[in-house]
Amino acid sequence: MTVTNAAIIIIGDEVLAGNTIDTNSNFIAKELHNIGIKVAEIFTISDDTDCIKQALNDAFKITNLVITTGGLGPTKDDKTKKAIAHFFDDNLITDPETLAHLEQILINRNRAHLFDINRPQAKIPSKAKVIQNHNGTAPCLMMEENEKIAFVLPGVPYEVKPLIKDQIIPLLAERFSLSHLVVKIISVVDFPESLLAQTIEDWESHLPENIKLAYLPIGNRVKLKLTAIGNNKTDLEAQLNHIIEPLKPLIQDKVISWDNEDIASILKFILTKRGLSISTAESCTGGGISRLITSISGSSAYFQGGITAYAVNQKINILKVPKQLINQHTVVSEQVAEAMAIGCQELFKTDISISTTGVAGPQTDQYQNEIGSVYYSVRVKNKSYNYHLHLPHLDREDFMNFVSQRVLQSVVEVLVFNPNES
Amino acid sequence: MTVTNAAIIIIGDEVLAGNTIDTNSNFIAKELHNIGIKVAEIFTISDDTDCIKQALNDAFKITNLVITTGGLGPTKDDKTKKAIAHFFDDNLITDPETLAHLEQILINRNRAHLFDINRPQAKIPSKAKVIQNHNGTAPCLMMEENEKIAFVLPGVPYEVKPLIKDQIIPLLAERFSLSHLVVKIISVVDFPESLLAQTIEDWESHLPENIKLAYLPIGNRVKLKLTAIGNNKTDLEAQLNHIIEPLKPLIQDKVISWDNEDIASILKFILTKRGLSISTAESCTGGGISRLITSISGSSAYFQGGITAYAVNQKINILKVPKQLINQHTVVSEQVAEAMAIGCQELFKTDISISTTGVAGPQTDQYQNEIGSVYYSVRVKNKSYNYHLHLPHLDREDFMNFVSQRVLQSVVEVLVFNPNES
Repeated sequence: MTVTNAAIIIIGDEVLAGNTIDTNSNFIAKELHNIGIKVAEIFTISDDTDCIKQALNDAFKITNLVITTGGLGPTKDDKTKKAIAHFFDDNLITDPETLAHLEQILINRNRAHLFDINRPQAKIPSKAKVIQNHNGTAPCLMMEENEKIAFVLPGVPYEVKPLIKDQIIPLLAERFSLSHLVVKIISVVDFPESLLAQTIEDWESHLPENIKLAYLPIGNRVKLKLTAIGNNKTDLEAQLNHIIEPLKPLIQDKVISWDNEDIASILKFILTKRGLSISTAESCTGGGISRLITSISGSSAYFQGGITAYAVNQKINILKVPKQLINQHTVVSEQVAEAMAIGCQELFKTDISISTTGVAGPQTDQYQNEIGSVYYSVRVKNKSYNYHLHLPHLDREDFMNFVSQRVLQSVVEVLVFNPNES
Repeated sequence: MTVTNAAIIIIGDEVLAGNTIDTNSNFIAKELHNIGIKVAEIFTISDDTDCIKQALNDAFKITNLVITTGGLGPTKDDKTKKAIAHFFDDNLITDPETLAHLEQILINRNRAHLFDINRPQAKIPSKAKVIQNHNGTAPCLMMEENEKIAFVLPGVPYEVKPLIKDQIIPLLAERFSLSHLVVKIISVVDFPESLLAQTIEDWESHLPENIKLAYLPIGNRVKLKLTAIGNNKTDLEAQLNHIIEPLKPLIQDKVISWDNEDIASILKFILTKRGLSISTAESCTGGGISRLITSISGSSAYFQGGITAYAVNQKINILKVPKQLINQHTVVSEQVAEAMAIGCQELFKTDISISTTGVAGPQTDQYQNEIGSVYYSVRVKNKSYNYHLHLPHLDREDFMNFVSQRVLQSVVEVLVFNPNES
């Protein structure tokens, strides 16, 4: 039996009703991709036995590996287990080991009085192999028959992640001696996707069979994702390094990173390499930039801290923005952005500081500045780089996220394209 | 023709490969839900004409309204349009109006030189009705025949949102004179879901036909979502208010809000009502709490600002945490959390302040504190409320998000359950 692709079934009325954003499928897809298994389809369906049966049928038509999440809670009717038992022509029994494990979890949580309510969770198909779920009461099940494998998982993301990463992925990788996979991500800025595609068309058409290229646009950055599949990791890395050589003369003056996924990791790489520290002074991004920088483990080595100076007073009191500057230009202005960055650099004593001031909307500010307008400043040593964006098409949440991403990208651009200045 | 449910087809290899988290289906599902249309299934499939054809067939078997996103980019092969034309027995033609609109967009963006590359985007099925996409170059299409309606949208979220909200939803609501829908969300804290379900079982079993109840757990909070469907909005609101009366004696000492979705909105409601101001001093949450508070429009009325005091020095210099306290208890301690909140309250001059200090992982800190351990403090006027959580099962990202949510929930709990103190 070989496994090359998979299907994911997300079971949850709360996802279909828009109450919950499904992040499980993304996590599972990424992890499967890392061991060379492609996800052919994701089915998001209702907590309903017939729907689950139908989805299992459809999914096993296109693949022999199916992973389901959700539909196993104590207050639910365990429709998932019924459907899976039906599909594999099996029946549900109470598993003593799972029952004992369940009782132990509830005792550890001082919830022993809930044992009777949770008891049905120990019912499993008789042919199922149980994979212990250390973070919740619902067991994870593996069913296998006639060259078909199903993994049945709970829906809570923090239960799903370790089950997938620590147990299911290693099991699959060993069992099917899967290929190795090496990924390289090149970040190109200020190069429209269609023009970039045209520029590298010839290079792309000569890529070897085992290397796939994907364009992943994010803001005005395009991530070129190269995925190489093969048997030897070192060979694949060498192959990728070799393959990008002819690409360099075509795009290198627009490349901010040759090998990192997200902007906060690229920032970490460059700040660590150059021994530079950074701090933030945010207004319209509300702490989003600080949050983005600290999403990276080890950021304490270069991130001193940040301030969200949301009220005008705080810009004056803490960041020492001259009151007169605000009166003259309003708080959403290039001048105030620059003064905020300078004040921030002083406060935190860092090599680099960044600032944002703008109107996230949906209401305008007291000065009637335009919604979606943002000024930001990147201060590197004693030099300021000032920017303005107008993003009226983004709602509040997207605006705050987009600007946070873009500001960090500008920091990286300043450092990469002005290597001598810092 | 009547429309009661819908299917969503997400077309995108980047979603299946785990490169992109699909948020479109959540947005569309929520908006459809608001006009009483239930999403029966979400199909997430590959950018492949056969897959799209198959999904269209499957989707139209369960519903007569299908919405697709993705697969319309200029560098793609326009597989979606081919598949949709095939399904509706149609062929693609170049639409002069769409072509003119496309040219205008590119001129407005100073990208006129890309006109030839983008030209295929003006090809549409001959029977399609075009819905103008004001934020991108791919047109949005509506196809209708034999009591089947499809909307074909691009994949970029900021293009999808206004198309759905401003154009497609009003069109559907008017055309099918859909029911009204009123939602009420009750937030219950510190009440395990299974026990809560048992407590209100009798009440739940007597809910009228037109009211649905969903349990939405988030941390140690359970949101009870009541959705009422009918013809008159005012009547539905009255009905919901009436229906929750017998619920009050059962759960009211565990309820922090009777009518708000997310914790930041609940916080806004209570701070605004009591005229209180707030500020934040964060370490392990990295700005996440500040970001969460400011996700709400109008938060500037009560949020003065926040500081991410990431480095130990900054806790001492800016928040005035006594150095000796850190030496004695380490930086991850109840004492330091409390001192941070006090320093924050002084700095920003607010009624309330909150602080966090902990180890998000995956590495431990310089004091070898436990990963997943966090102390936080809520300061209300001259009183401190201190908390400790141990969350070793959460990865860095989930830890930061969970703690941010929980801290705001604690602020609300303090204010709701101690109404006389502030």
